[in-house]
Amino acid sequence: MGSESEEGRSAEEGVILGVDGGTTSTVCVCLPLLPFSDHRQLPDPIPVLGRAAAGCSNHNSVGETAARETLEQVINEALSRAGKNLSAVLAICLGVSGVNHPSDQERVLNWIRNIFPRNVKIYVQNDAVVALASGTMGRLHGCVLIAGTGCIAYGFTEDGKEARSAGAGPVLGDWGSGYGIASRALTAVMKAHDGRGPATMLTNCILQSLGLSSPDEIIGWTYADSSWARIAALVPVVVSCAEAGDQIADEILSNAVRELALSVKAVVQRLHLAGEDEKGTFPIVMVGGVLEANKRWDIGNEVTNLILKAFPGACPIRPKVEPAIGAALFAWSTIMQEMEGNGHR
Amino acid sequence: MGSESEEGRSAEEGVILGVDGGTTSTVCVCLPLLPFSDHRQLPDPIPVLGRAAAGCSNHNSVGETAARETLEQVINEALSRAGKNLSAVLAICLGVSGVNHPSDQERVLNWIRNIFPRNVKIYVQNDAVVALASGTMGRLHGCVLIAGTGCIAYGFTEDGKEARSAGAGPVLGDWGSGYGIASRALTAVMKAHDGRGPATMLTNCILQSLGLSSPDEIIGWTYADSSWARIAALVPVVVSCAEAGDQIADEILSNAVRELALSVKAVVQRLHLAGEDEKGTFPIVMVGGVLEANKRWDIGNEVTNLILKAFPGACPIRPKVEPAIGAALFAWSTIMQEMEGNGHR
Repeated sequence: MGSESEEGRSAEEGVILGVDGGTTSTVCVCLPLLPFSDHRQLPDPIPVLGRAAAGCSNHNSVGETAARETLEQVINEALSRAGKNLSAVLAICLGVSGVNHPSDQERVLNWIRNIFPRNVKIYVQNDAVVALASGTMGRLHGCVLIAGTGCIAYGFTEDGKEARSAGAGPVLGDWGSGYGIASRALTAVMKAHDGRGPATMLTNCILQSLGLSSPDEIIGWTYADSSWARIAALVPVVVSCAEAGDQIADEILSNAVRELALSVKAVVQRLHLAGEDEKGTFPIVMVGGVLEANKRWDIGNEVTNLILKAFPGACPIRPKVEPAIGAALFAWSTIMQEMEGNGHR
Repeated sequence: MGSESEEGRSAEEGVILGVDGGTTSTVCVCLPLLPFSDHRQLPDPIPVLGRAAAGCSNHNSVGETAARETLEQVINEALSRAGKNLSAVLAICLGVSGVNHPSDQERVLNWIRNIFPRNVKIYVQNDAVVALASGTMGRLHGCVLIAGTGCIAYGFTEDGKEARSAGAGPVLGDWGSGYGIASRALTAVMKAHDGRGPATMLTNCILQSLGLSSPDEIIGWTYADSSWARIAALVPVVVSCAEAGDQIADEILSNAVRELALSVKAVVQRLHLAGEDEKGTFPIVMVGGVLEANKRWDIGNEVTNLILKAFPGACPIRPKVEPAIGAALFAWSTIMQEMEGNGHR
C-alpha cells in the first residue's frame, strides 16, 4: 500500500516480465510498466526493453532442476539486456507448459518466489493462457488453440470460468499436434513398407528429410531420441506431400484439422462462449507452428473454417506479439486491475 | 568336426540354451540335447533342466549395458539350476526383442560371444522368431503373431524367405498392441472428460484401477513413468468394459483386432504362405497376453476368425511351451540340420 508518489516512481522505472515456457523453447521479455489501464490504449508496437531465449522448461520433459535453471537463466538475461536488475521488477507472469494443476502452479511459484523481492507480483499460468493473452492484449476472454509440437485448447469467460481440452501429451491422444501429425505420417510409411497400407509419397520424402535409406531405419531413428519436437519437425514434409497430391498425407492433415476444431468446440460449448444460440462473438486466438504454416494446404485456415461453421460469431485472431509478451501483458493488466481495485487510479 | 564318439558324449551331457528377451521379462531355459532329428519325435513335455527369469533386456528400452547384464544373469542362473557350467553348452539361441536389423544381431552376438567357448553355436533372433518356433517345435515355417505390450507379425517360408509387419513401437503405430489398446482407452477417458468424446465406462474403471480420483491426474500418471508395459497393463480393464457393453471399449478392441489381422495378412501375402489361391495350409502361431486373455471378449479368437476368413487353410496354433523353449528348440533343430549336413547322422 505505497503512497501516490511511490506508485508514480514505480510506474516510471519499474518493469514487467513475461515468460513463455514452451516444450521447444523458453522466452523472457522485459516491458516497461505501460501507463494505460485499457488494452485498447496500448502502444503499437509494444515496447520491449530486453529479451532472452533458451531451451525447454517443461518439467515433464527435462526434469525439475533443468526446468528451473532454464527459467532463472532467461529471466536474468532479459533483465540484464534491459539494463535493469531484479529490484526493478513489479510483476512477472510465467506461462509454463506442463502446468495443468494447482499443485504444478504452486511448484513453479516455489522455484521463483525466492529469486524476487517479496512485494513482486508473481503469476504462474499454463502456456496456453499467455498465448491467449498475446492475442487479446492481456485480456483473459475467449478461446486459444495452440498447435505446435503439442496441442491444447483453452478458454476463459469474462467472469473467470475456464476450461481446457486436449493438451495431455501423445500417450493421451493429442492427434492434432505436430507430434501427432508426424507420428501418423511415420506410421503410414511403416505400413506402406510392410504391406499393411498403400504406397505414399511420404516414404521417399521422409527418408530423404531424415537422411535414411530404408523405412526399417526409422525404427532406430525414433528410439534414438524420444524428444517430441524432433518427431514434430516432420510436419512440413507432410504438408508438402499433401500439397503434391498425396492422399495419405492429405488424410492425416484433414484428421488433425478435425481433431483441433473438435478441441475448440469442446471448450466453447462447455463455457458457452458463443452464447446459448452458439452465434455470439468471442475471440479465438490461433498460435503455434502447425497453424502458422501459411502454405497452400493451410491447416490453420481449415481449422478456422470448421470453427466458423460451428460458431459463426467466432473472431479468429493471429497474435501480432509473441506469447512471452502475452504473459507480460497479462501481468500488466492484472496489476492494473488490482491498482484500480485499490483506488489508485 | 569331432569324431563320432565325441558327438555321442556331447549329445549325452551337452545342453542347449534358449533365451526369450521380451520387453517385460527375460527368460532362459536349459534343455538336454534331444536325440531326435525330427520335431514330430520330440518328447511331450519337453524336459527342462533349468530355468531362470529376470527383467527387460530390450536395449531400446533399458540401454545396452542393462540389457547385456540381464542376459548374462539369466544364462548363468539357468545353467546353475541345471547343475551345468558354460563348458556344457553346445548351442544357444537368443530371441531378443528389439533385434530388427543385421547390425542389432551383430551387436548382441558381440555381447555374448565372449561368455562362451569358441565352438558354441550362437544364434540371435528377433523374439518373434523364437515365438514361432515355440508353436512349430523349432521349425521355421509359417507366421507368428505376438501381441503383448508390443505387437509384431513375422513369417518364414520353407525355403528361408522371411517378412515382418508392425513391431515398430508405439510412435510408429503398433495399434494392435497392449500399449496401443490401453493408450486409446486412456485417450477416450481424456476425450470424455474434456467434452471431445462421449462418456464411457472406461473412465471409472481406469481411474479405480490406477487409484486416481480425476482424469486430470492421468496426465501426471502417464508422465511419471514412460514404461510401455505399465500402460499396457490396463488391457484387462478395457476388456472388462467391452464385456460389460461399453461401446467405446468395444470399438477400441475391434480396431485392435483389425490391426492385428492386417499385420498377419501383410506377411502371409508377401511370402505367399497360403499359395497363389490363398487357400494353402500354413501354421499361424498366436502368442502374447493380448491374444491369451481367453475372456468372453476374446481378442485372440476374433483375430483368428479374421485370418481364417482371408486364408481358410491357416492352422492356428497356441504354443504349449514358452518362447524360451522355442528358442532352445530352434537352436536344437538348427544344429541337428547342420550335423545332418555334415553326415554325422
